[in-house]
Amino acid sequence: MGCRAGIVVTGTEVLTGRVADRNGPWLAEQLRLHGVDVGHVVVVGDRPDDLSAALRFLQQAAVQLIITTGGLGPTADDLTAAVVGRFQQRESRLDPALEARIAAIIDRLNAGRAWHADPAATAAGVGKQAMVPAGATVLEPVGTAPGLIVPARDGESGPPVVVLPGPPGELQAMWPLVLTDPGVQAALADRAELRQQTIRLWATPESELARTLREHEPELDGLEITTCLRDGELEIVTRFAAAAQPVYDAFAGVIASEYAAALLSTDGSTIDDLVAAALLARGLTIATAESCTSGLLAGRLGSRAGASAYLLGGVVAYDNRVKSRLLDVPAGLIEQFGAVSAEVADAMAEGVRSALGADVGVGITGVAGPGGGTQAKPVGLVELCVITPDGNHARRVTVSGNRDAVRARAVLIALHLVRSALL
Amino acid sequence: MGCRAGIVVTGTEVLTGRVADRNGPWLAEQLRLHGVDVGHVVVVGDRPDDLSAALRFLQQAAVQLIITTGGLGPTADDLTAAVVGRFQQRESRLDPALEARIAAIIDRLNAGRAWHADPAATAAGVGKQAMVPAGATVLEPVGTAPGLIVPARDGESGPPVVVLPGPPGELQAMWPLVLTDPGVQAALADRAELRQQTIRLWATPESELARTLREHEPELDGLEITTCLRDGELEIVTRFAAAAQPVYDAFAGVIASEYAAALLSTDGSTIDDLVAAALLARGLTIATAESCTSGLLAGRLGSRAGASAYLLGGVVAYDNRVKSRLLDVPAGLIEQFGAVSAEVADAMAEGVRSALGADVGVGITGVAGPGGGTQAKPVGLVELCVITPDGNHARRVTVSGNRDAVRARAVLIALHLVRSALL
Repeated sequence: MGCRAGIVVTGTEVLTGRVADRNGPWLAEQLRLHGVDVGHVVVVGDRPDDLSAALRFLQQAAVQLIITTGGLGPTADDLTAAVVGRFQQRESRLDPALEARIAAIIDRLNAGRAWHADPAATAAGVGKQAMVPAGATVLEPVGTAPGLIVPARDGESGPPVVVLPGPPGELQAMWPLVLTDPGVQAALADRAELRQQTIRLWATPESELARTLREHEPELDGLEITTCLRDGELEIVTRFAAAAQPVYDAFAGVIASEYAAALLSTDGSTIDDLVAAALLARGLTIATAESCTSGLLAGRLGSRAGASAYLLGGVVAYDNRVKSRLLDVPAGLIEQFGAVSAEVADAMAEGVRSALGADVGVGITGVAGPGGGTQAKPVGLVELCVITPDGNHARRVTVSGNRDAVRARAVLIALHLVRSALL
Repeated sequence: MGCRAGIVVTGTEVLTGRVADRNGPWLAEQLRLHGVDVGHVVVVGDRPDDLSAALRFLQQAAVQLIITTGGLGPTADDLTAAVVGRFQQRESRLDPALEARIAAIIDRLNAGRAWHADPAATAAGVGKQAMVPAGATVLEPVGTAPGLIVPARDGESGPPVVVLPGPPGELQAMWPLVLTDPGVQAALADRAELRQQTIRLWATPESELARTLREHEPELDGLEITTCLRDGELEIVTRFAAAAQPVYDAFAGVIASEYAAALLSTDGSTIDDLVAAALLARGLTIATAESCTSGLLAGRLGSRAGASAYLLGGVVAYDNRVKSRLLDVPAGLIEQFGAVSAEVADAMAEGVRSALGADVGVGITGVAGPGGGTQAKPVGLVELCVITPDGNHARRVTVSGNRDAVRARAVLIALHLVRSALL
């Protein structure tokens, strides 16, 4: 690995899990695309000593670049710029021109707002955000906080530290400025492109794949292969230098032939991509009838731009009366077989297909828990049915986990059932 | 802070963002509840040298305990146990009894499955998972991977390393065993309870709060206050030793009086909690009619256990024909005012309320983007309406961000609108 960077994510709210970090992974991926490897992402709270320790750790790990995210706001617990300035032994001073630009942004934001901002409070925050370590490059604010590129202390060859704001939208908009900075480009001069490819398999045990990898070990030289089992999908991600492309192609061929039945995609396509492509290819519309998942399948189908080409909508039939009123599921059917039954899932799929005039109807009913389970119908039991112009495809599963896990897994299995029904 | 721990999250899939880490925050919170402070969560890929460097960093940061997650699977890239063994200078040996117990678990799992597992592949994986560093305590597998508690090298006083599996369900089920381990208890002997309280404000700028904090600074001694603005809510989380409880109570009183109108909760309740409580308190049922959010509001309402007490269901009216067919929104109304209009949001709310026989109806229609925006109705425009037995409550907002952000924000605003309509 020619060139490495380290990332420090700051924020007690991230450290304690109140906010999930999206910046560390995003930056790691961007850096990878530019041939820069990331070894560590360090999450620290809003404490100066902990942040300093993280910076020293990455410096000692001999990275060529350090990136920090967060801690650039107007409140006292936002202290990243000051700590990084001290770390690089550069004194911070107020930049009056920057202060004026930030103040103008705040004025514009406040103009349209109903609440009354206290001018002194605003000015204090702006003054704090306009403090710049000597010799640092200012990255113009996208929100209200400027970013910084702070070079190593004078006369030393340590990594520059790029200081970016925490809100992902601001960070991502500021990122192009980082890459064109001469100091950053010099630090990353040794970078080499690293390619990454993803293969997805459905319902394949990890130990089977481990066997395949062992058997073919001599042919995998130059590939860094990681496998990850999640949501019932086995994801094989391989990173390699450009020169190893033929080695990778041969490996991908081996997987595609040995796991033909389980192969979802070799181009990184997700199950969502595959379902959308299958509907578009056949020009079919889809409608959902959901009980235990209460809208999550429709929500997921609608999360793709352009979903209106195939998604008509759906009915969330959480209460049994809704199953009857909107989906024409006979009350007698529910009484006879129970709300969680293959018969009701089938009637829901047919009911929504007919009520919305869709080509494909999906019915999901299950016991999400934590209550409501019985010996015969335990928590985790989910009945699914997909009806296409070609016929009915039913599935019964019992999945483990808590309420969230059962609902998420039910959505995923529904997507796979739709895909296989359309194959 | 009397007692500190460090966490190492392993896995290239986490480092590169393909899987979001849930273990670091969960463990940080559990440790906090037991009076142990966490300064750093370090995320590393599946590389032995990077993992070793992270362990050394935490050791040098003088933590009393190190916890690792992940990297205990049967494949070659799962190497945490071996690396931790070397770090503590303890040789790993096969534990034949553990090997037999893991093999029995795998046999049970395989018994019910359709695919044919290769016995040699399985045995190799089991053998790898049964390697135990000398002197380590084995934590019995919850899934297939055992955990480990590996003491400091003999004669040294460094922190023990607790090695836990990556799947959150397995890790969480194994956690109680960690806390009762004598070695872990000895390492954490100096822990002191640290309390944490959360106050949530709606639509309050962070700089306003910063002013309040500055004004009251002399009265805040002993409180560690962090603020975080997200999803339109300003979250104030305060940590303090038990002795500072009166200081905190006074601070909470100041916030409650200065921000009375914006106050959502002082007991950590989320907007979801508040909506559920308001519906339950008045014995009302709710139904949703969603266009641009395509089921996400119903999905969120249904994510709470016991939601059946108030959630009847909803209609996902993504396509305009569904608005007319299932919600009785006159086609002429859509033609006259457009699908994204206050008139249609109102008709959707009333339509679903009447179709499902609910007390409260919610209508959401908007331009989620990236396409479909016009000068008059730009991407991000969302029209919402909540109809209760007391009347209609409408709201028009224009939110920024990408498709996912617009949809998520629309759901959140809908929840706040429901809450204020029920107050």
